[in-house]
Amino acid sequence: MKIDILSLFPEMFEGFLNTSIIKRAIDSSLVEVCVHDFREFSLNKHKKVDDYPYGGGQGMVLMCQPIIDCLKTLTTKDSLVILMSPQGEVLQQSYSQKLSLEKHLIIICGHYEGFDERIRDYVDIEISIGDYILTGGELASMVVCDSIIRLLEGAIRESSHEDDSFSQGLLEYPQYTRPYEYDGTTVPDILISGHHENIRKWRLQQSLKKTLRKRPDLIKNRQMTDEELKMIKEIEKND
Amino acid sequence: MKIDILSLFPEMFEGFLNTSIIKRAIDSSLVEVCVHDFREFSLNKHKKVDDYPYGGGQGMVLMCQPIIDCLKTLTTKDSLVILMSPQGEVLQQSYSQKLSLEKHLIIICGHYEGFDERIRDYVDIEISIGDYILTGGELASMVVCDSIIRLLEGAIRESSHEDDSFSQGLLEYPQYTRPYEYDGTTVPDILISGHHENIRKWRLQQSLKKTLRKRPDLIKNRQMTDEELKMIKEIEKND
Repeated sequence: MKIDILSLFPEMFEGFLNTSIIKRAIDSSLVEVCVHDFREFSLNKHKKVDDYPYGGGQGMVLMCQPIIDCLKTLTTKDSLVILMSPQGEVLQQSYSQKLSLEKHLIIICGHYEGFDERIRDYVDIEISIGDYILTGGELASMVVCDSIIRLLEGAIRESSHEDDSFSQGLLEYPQYTRPYEYDGTTVPDILISGHHENIRKWRLQQSLKKTLRKRPDLIKNRQMTDEELKMIKEIEKND
Repeated sequence: MKIDILSLFPEMFEGFLNTSIIKRAIDSSLVEVCVHDFREFSLNKHKKVDDYPYGGGQGMVLMCQPIIDCLKTLTTKDSLVILMSPQGEVLQQSYSQKLSLEKHLIIICGHYEGFDERIRDYVDIEISIGDYILTGGELASMVVCDSIIRLLEGAIRESSHEDDSFSQGLLEYPQYTRPYEYDGTTVPDILISGHHENIRKWRLQQSLKKTLRKRPDLIKNRQMTDEELKMIKEIEKND
């Protein structure tokens, strides 16, 4: 997969691209990520990229020319052009999964200002990472990249995906590791019993409990097994 | 405001803290942000911070000791301790607004692994930035910080907040700036008419149209003015 990112602040991406799983995915050629400063494409002699809005109003607006001219050097028939925008479809895990199958993503980051509407003519999809305002699209684009890159085959152990919150439609059960006792609190006895089937049941029950309490919407949207339905009845009876 | 962040990858934050609005807010002392590597608090001679899960299972689990010991050096009676977690309440703009009134935030970032459940005993709230999986809590914590810091008084022009998508409960109207014509597409005539009242109406109508099409849920949750209700009726009639 290739990802091109258009941003006025390429230096914001350095830490992200040089750490941990993302760095490993790049080093092992699972993905190539290039950040392009679209200011370089400005035809203005001062390399200006924004200007006052037509019709008046507060703030500045990103000009279409530098962004579109930069896009034109990158787009091929395999490209999916993404605009990070609070107006976009809100990212969800299933959406990241779909995007992880693409060959070439081009992601445009605005920064605190609005952008000239004509940019949208060159965009395939708009993505938002949630209903909150950020100073720019940079962090949002990294969130999109992170959620996609970890899904590429070989980026992390396959079995890790099975444990993911959401991938099974339930929140994860409580985990414990050493020390056995810390600050007076100990690990639940069941986990050191060695009885695998009981541990499995306890974990499922804990997952269901957490999900019922914190995210009942996830339960509603999920196809439940008979065992799960029985456990839910018990949990609701004891509440 | 003071923000302390606990992370195994402090270098990931450098670009974020040194760019644009966030840098300016730090330079002008609106906010102080410190990133703490909790590996330094590990009592293990190899500075290990994770271990196998009790009860078996895939992957490693972050130990409670380094994180809790680090927390203890930072927490005061004014602190709000936040855990970034897919199990948390999903961030929304109104939530960021509430958090922007706090004096001291401590944000804990896990990284791809689960963490020992006992950490939750030291946590006030859990926040998720959306229903997708990330390789760690670092990007998520930056998203939270970014959305909060821009709301601090003096971080950006006050009038910018009024234009925000969501802050008025509608998506933003189309913006245009120079050049007047690009690639054969021109700016809508109304915006160069100089007729302020007509421009205001056109923009409101465009906002409503976009919101109806892309995010009808926002319309449902909003107290509408008479003018807006009338416009919506017209839009629906013409569709």
